[in-house]
Amino acid sequence: MQPSFTITVELGERRYPIFIGRGLAGAFDLAPYLAGGACLVVTDETVGPLWLDRVRGSLPAHTESLALPAGESHKTAATAWRVIDALAAMRAGRDASVVALGGGVVGDIAGFAAACYMRGVAFVQVPTTLLAQVDSSVGGKTGVNHPAGKNLVGAFHQPRAVLIDTDVLGTLPDRELVAGLAEVIKHAVIADAEFFDWLEAHMDELLARSPGALAHAIRRSCEIKAAVVAADEREAGSRALLNYGHTFGHAIENVQGYGEWLHGEAVAAGMVMAAELSGVDEAELSRLRALLERAGLPTAPPEGARGKLADAMGMDKKNRRGELRFVLLERLGRAVVGRPHSPARLAKILAP
Amino acid sequence: MQPSFTITVELGERRYPIFIGRGLAGAFDLAPYLAGGACLVVTDETVGPLWLDRVRGSLPAHTESLALPAGESHKTAATAWRVIDALAAMRAGRDASVVALGGGVVGDIAGFAAACYMRGVAFVQVPTTLLAQVDSSVGGKTGVNHPAGKNLVGAFHQPRAVLIDTDVLGTLPDRELVAGLAEVIKHAVIADAEFFDWLEAHMDELLARSPGALAHAIRRSCEIKAAVVAADEREAGSRALLNYGHTFGHAIENVQGYGEWLHGEAVAAGMVMAAELSGVDEAELSRLRALLERAGLPTAPPEGARGKLADAMGMDKKNRRGELRFVLLERLGRAVVGRPHSPARLAKILAP
Repeated sequence: MQPSFTITVELGERRYPIFIGRGLAGAFDLAPYLAGGACLVVTDETVGPLWLDRVRGSLPAHTESLALPAGESHKTAATAWRVIDALAAMRAGRDASVVALGGGVVGDIAGFAAACYMRGVAFVQVPTTLLAQVDSSVGGKTGVNHPAGKNLVGAFHQPRAVLIDTDVLGTLPDRELVAGLAEVIKHAVIADAEFFDWLEAHMDELLARSPGALAHAIRRSCEIKAAVVAADEREAGSRALLNYGHTFGHAIENVQGYGEWLHGEAVAAGMVMAAELSGVDEAELSRLRALLERAGLPTAPPEGARGKLADAMGMDKKNRRGELRFVLLERLGRAVVGRPHSPARLAKILAP
Repeated sequence: MQPSFTITVELGERRYPIFIGRGLAGAFDLAPYLAGGACLVVTDETVGPLWLDRVRGSLPAHTESLALPAGESHKTAATAWRVIDALAAMRAGRDASVVALGGGVVGDIAGFAAACYMRGVAFVQVPTTLLAQVDSSVGGKTGVNHPAGKNLVGAFHQPRAVLIDTDVLGTLPDRELVAGLAEVIKHAVIADAEFFDWLEAHMDELLARSPGALAHAIRRSCEIKAAVVAADEREAGSRALLNYGHTFGHAIENVQGYGEWLHGEAVAAGMVMAAELSGVDEAELSRLRALLERAGLPTAPPEGARGKLADAMGMDKKNRRGELRFVLLERLGRAVVGRPHSPARLAKILAP
């Protein structure tokens, strides 16, 4: 089966394709993107029962599988070690492949294990949430959490291919679909005003899960992310654009306790705060708020949280990592890295 | 203080210098090779008391330190995690640096932690054993052991610099010095017949720890290893040359139980076996045996072990990793990768 769209992430010898289309899982042959030896599908206890049997059709007959417990609280070194143990038990060699079937948590854990096993084996992503399809499965960031911080331990390990089957979104809960739309909107906001227009015109179709609209939104998001990653694989500079809304967003997650708000929800509110900090004009701010609201996303931090965000962002004397840096907007469709923010505006935004 | 020799490992944007000389530890300023943020020296309980205070002179005043328990049995993920925990406790950011002060075990653990912390922070090696100076500190292989195999989990993470102070060998036990000479001899055997001649002419000086002779042997070893690594950083092909003698050597370690024989001792016997398997002429075999014997290294597996090596090399039905491949010698000074070995000769070598 042929994908509707193929995007290439241009990373020299690590370049790889992203295939997007309906019904690809199980029908599209992934063998050319595997290394030929042992093959392990890593999934979780939510996604596995729904999609594992189907996806086996894309993989060699000798493929084995491992279902991890679902959820961010399991994104730990101990869970990554379970993947390593499974590979070792298979006597997997340097020609092994790891396939991640699931959302961002599964992809991050499986990718980190693939990066470390024998100092790196082949890795393929089959993301099953909109968030993973448009964000975490593209770009090679893998990792696990540490008590001292999210994604504190990890590796850059690019996949050999990303297989995005829009049909798998059929089993995704509404709230998670909407949270994924936050990152789609982010890609438009930072890099493509026309795409922002398109999202305004097609939000109803996206919420109704129109396959055509979803495929276009995923494609354009992946194109934008792929271009950013190709320009700065290891986030020495411009890749930080992708963090638009995330400094505020992470602080909201932190204050709420991770898991209360979904990542995409926190980023949605964070994007509005970052737009306010950027000083974009009121008309653009209104358009951003309106699009997020139509998607069903929050546009402000939760009740009572605003006053606690400064601490959560590490704005204290113990912060040795230097000044906080924000990705700012020039206008809708153009974000910039490295421009100083207005401390006065920041203080106003963070006032309880 | 200026080093006597500087070698560059040519790896494009990851190129780095190896500084070699007397009295460099503490006198040579490493600041230009650090990332500017938090700095953690990782050492062990043997080396730390001997050299940590001295080495601090090469590092920023705010440097902190962590002494790991000494020995291969501690080369585990749990120990690497202690390094991660220490960095997290320091609130180290992406501008952190990890400095490994010790032998191969410390370098492998600290390097792996540096590779994983925030997806990779700066790393500097200050090797304190001859083995680490001529082998493990150069080339970017890092990792820890897993119950299923040595170095099963790891990363390629190149140091920013390697500082080799020949004075630190003054506190190295004789047996470890000799084990390091095995890898020096290996570099001559695989790539440089003239260096082999030189080793024959200067073995007594090396054993007497003549600083000049040691510096030359270390320099030439690092040059050979650097050239091999530059040609094939991730061991897709020719880097396997460095494994000369190691297939037999690992099997000997395995049969003996790791720790009975030092790695270099096992490799010494393995090099003779690999030369026999290569079918080099008797005169060259005799020269190799004679040089190893003069160094005080074994030239054959321990009593009773020979018959058990086949199993230890995974020559059984469960070996899914394909046929065993040996690095063979064309002659002293020239090893080759990928040439088929003679099964008859192998059977004879492995006969009890």
